[in-house]
Amino acid sequence: MANNKKTTIKDIANVLNISAAAVSKALHDDSRISAKTKEAVKKVAEELNYQPNHLASALRRGKSNLVGVIVPRTNSNFFSSVIQHIEEVLDKEGYNIIITQSSESFEKECKNIDTLLFTQVDGIIASMANETIDLNYYEKIKSKGIPLILFDRGENDLNVDYIGIDDYESSHMIVKHLAEQGCKRIAHIGGYRHTRIYNNRIKGYIDAIKKYDLPIEDELLVESSLTIEDGRKKMSQLLALKNRPDAVYAAGDYAALGALQVLQENEIKVPDDIRLIGFGNEPFTSMLSPSITSVNQHSEKIGALAAQTFLERVKMNPLVQTLNKIILEAELIERDSSK
Amino acid sequence: MANNKKTTIKDIANVLNISAAAVSKALHDDSRISAKTKEAVKKVAEELNYQPNHLASALRRGKSNLVGVIVPRTNSNFFSSVIQHIEEVLDKEGYNIIITQSSESFEKECKNIDTLLFTQVDGIIASMANETIDLNYYEKIKSKGIPLILFDRGENDLNVDYIGIDDYESSHMIVKHLAEQGCKRIAHIGGYRHTRIYNNRIKGYIDAIKKYDLPIEDELLVESSLTIEDGRKKMSQLLALKNRPDAVYAAGDYAALGALQVLQENEIKVPDDIRLIGFGNEPFTSMLSPSITSVNQHSEKIGALAAQTFLERVKMNPLVQTLNKIILEAELIERDSSK
Repeated sequence: MANNKKTTIKDIANVLNISAAAVSKALHDDSRISAKTKEAVKKVAEELNYQPNHLASALRRGKSNLVGVIVPRTNSNFFSSVIQHIEEVLDKEGYNIIITQSSESFEKECKNIDTLLFTQVDGIIASMANETIDLNYYEKIKSKGIPLILFDRGENDLNVDYIGIDDYESSHMIVKHLAEQGCKRIAHIGGYRHTRIYNNRIKGYIDAIKKYDLPIEDELLVESSLTIEDGRKKMSQLLALKNRPDAVYAAGDYAALGALQVLQENEIKVPDDIRLIGFGNEPFTSMLSPSITSVNQHSEKIGALAAQTFLERVKMNPLVQTLNKIILEAELIERDSSK
Repeated sequence: MANNKKTTIKDIANVLNISAAAVSKALHDDSRISAKTKEAVKKVAEELNYQPNHLASALRRGKSNLVGVIVPRTNSNFFSSVIQHIEEVLDKEGYNIIITQSSESFEKECKNIDTLLFTQVDGIIASMANETIDLNYYEKIKSKGIPLILFDRGENDLNVDYIGIDDYESSHMIVKHLAEQGCKRIAHIGGYRHTRIYNNRIKGYIDAIKKYDLPIEDELLVESSLTIEDGRKKMSQLLALKNRPDAVYAAGDYAALGALQVLQENEIKVPDDIRLIGFGNEPFTSMLSPSITSVNQHSEKIGALAAQTFLERVKMNPLVQTLNKIILEAELIERDSSK
């Protein structure tokens, strides 16, 4: 295997004394080629270690033209929409993407990173799992010298490009909207505090509550995994309080959906008795009755900007690179559940 | 590069005269190791072409422990649920999955196949794009000798393992349900005829309509891409008929959603004026008002069976393999929109 020269279709054709076109047809199982010839072509191709994949040549140039994407789950409109828009931008530039999901597990995320590095991706665009605290595996990507771009759930400590929305300000916008309508006891079903974006939403909630001279009470602020099930659980918990909230702001739409189910099962009117706001603008929020007020996280822009940032990174001189931290302003989509 | 022996951490340790543990720590950027040592370790690791990835050794054994999954889109509860259940089964057996989406494009699907073959997957589990008619690219997977398992959207011509539901019988079940409630003019917003599953639903619809002595009319059977937008369009078209249908069976839930929107915009009562049934049991069907009757395609079972079939394939002797064609019975979930 000392021969580093790439085997071409012509090499195979020369060995068999047939045309290159016939070799190509044989390799694609064309019906115009006899079974005997196909067999001969495939045997020679194997002997010469022929790599029919056009990507193989890209790899020899040190490029796979693959970009790896890691998401907590594909079963979320936000993440699948970001993926869609990453793909649209990268497809035009000749890149293919491969997707892995962490299912919110740190261990799985580490495996995903190993998998993507193994497949020789030219870069990784990722949003972290809920569980992830240890950043060693992300450092591993950086140490390989390939671009790492984080979106939505990222960590400042990593010092890499990041695209997301202003989570702190989003909470201000929500509390303002509820306070202006006379809500006095606004509860927050927040995400995990160790996840930067959820922590920022919690901080924003606390500061905004103070700003509007509303009560800050431990019992009104609960930490949640933000699934439908946990949204149900946390809403039941809030309903069991002596002094119930008159508004609930959930840091995720699925948790808001679980909360709505519990409220409706208990015949509590939304928005009349309790106002409800979610986060993420999942399509179902507009389909429900009442429709749920939510926050548009600009998945289209985030996907496109993440892809463009990757493209800049691979084109730019590493010495002149400065970090991109793109923080988009979120948009409150006011619906029936909050007014 | 004539040396085929794998470089180990010990080799690096020997060169630098430090312990293997120190090398390992240095490679993981452990804070207990000096920057100078880290730099030296990384330099030697590079010179010796050290592959820290545990998957590299798997590859040398002819196995990557990767399984590629191709779906038309991740933005569908059915597909993301199948992915989830494939992953749960394969994860336990030490396999990681990488996902690609075709976005219903044949060209993109071909790129996906190239990408997955390039990444040396041990097998591919796929559901075909709407556009796909030419099966050459799938033949390419077969010719590589790695297992190919199709689910939901597959083609008999390929002669590979397949897991899906009984689409023909599903249509019978739906028409029966509507006919029993006195519906006389049942329209079908069907998928593309060239896609086997949609063609089977259309055939099932036609045969069931005949069975119940209902009118078979060309204008009641329309072909659709089954998006929300196209569901809207096709429903408007059906409403413009001189003789309107009294029931609409859409071959996909998104098309049913589009149809429902148009019906509600036109103040046509569902189910009183027109009964409506979708397909796929997307979560939103149960959240809407009225909730939409739909067909459960058993994504959990399909995902688990696809993964198990792959595992059987890699374990079995190729000479004793027989094809798996697993056809599950679908389940009608009766909701407000049809009764």
